[in-house]
Amino acid sequence: MAASSIRVLVCTSCRAGEDAHTRPGALLMDALRARLDERNLDIAVEPVDCLAVCKRPATVAFAGAGKWTYVIGDLDGVAHVDELIDSARSFAATDNGIVAWQDRPPCFRKGVVSRTPPAS
Amino acid sequence: MAASSIRVLVCTSCRAGEDAHTRPGALLMDALRARLDERNLDIAVEPVDCLAVCKRPATVAFAGAGKWTYVIGDLDGVAHVDELIDSARSFAATDNGIVAWQDRPPCFRKGVVSRTPPAS
Repeated sequence: MAASSIRVLVCTSCRAGEDAHTRPGALLMDALRARLDERNLDIAVEPVDCLAVCKRPATVAFAGAGKWTYVIGDLDGVAHVDELIDSARSFAATDNGIVAWQDRPPCFRKGVVSRTPPAS
Repeated sequence: MAASSIRVLVCTSCRAGEDAHTRPGALLMDALRARLDERNLDIAVEPVDCLAVCKRPATVAFAGAGKWTYVIGDLDGVAHVDELIDSARSFAATDNGIVAWQDRPPCFRKGVVSRTPPAS
């Protein structure tokens, strides 16, 4: 599986509600990278400055050449780390980025904010 | 302005609330095309099967090579047609797709669902 050909883009801009200091996206990014290392998986995780989903932090996007791009929100930097990695692996395993319902962990089923098609 | 190099992708899947027959996206797409013709503007408007923003119809995406992709919802097929065309023109006029606040008509300011970066 060419997992390394996709990118998990983590919005590091969002704040946690009224708490101006906690950045749930930055925490999620660190947790993802640490867990990928533990699981010996090679998936690119990159910070991105604002996915414009400010009301549903933490938020990530799955992107890859020739694939639909998914934006997923309502993510918890602890509870959803493994689910999110499994979601990214399902995404990587598709040809066009469209992941069948049965291959979506709960955080992917519940958190989709939008999806957009690849360049034509 | 290379307006023709961008694409306005209109989600034609959404239904209007409980009304299973009305497709606000399809109506919006037709209205956009008609108005572009009246204004003698060349911007590609394409249907897309589900942008996964089902709760905020009608929904469109602005996309273009090397640009951020914006998803915009809460669009009315009558009230927002000219605003949306002006939004698309602002998007087309940028190098990277990021439209300054002062260049965003109201429907663009209020309706952003998400944005995602161009392929790296």
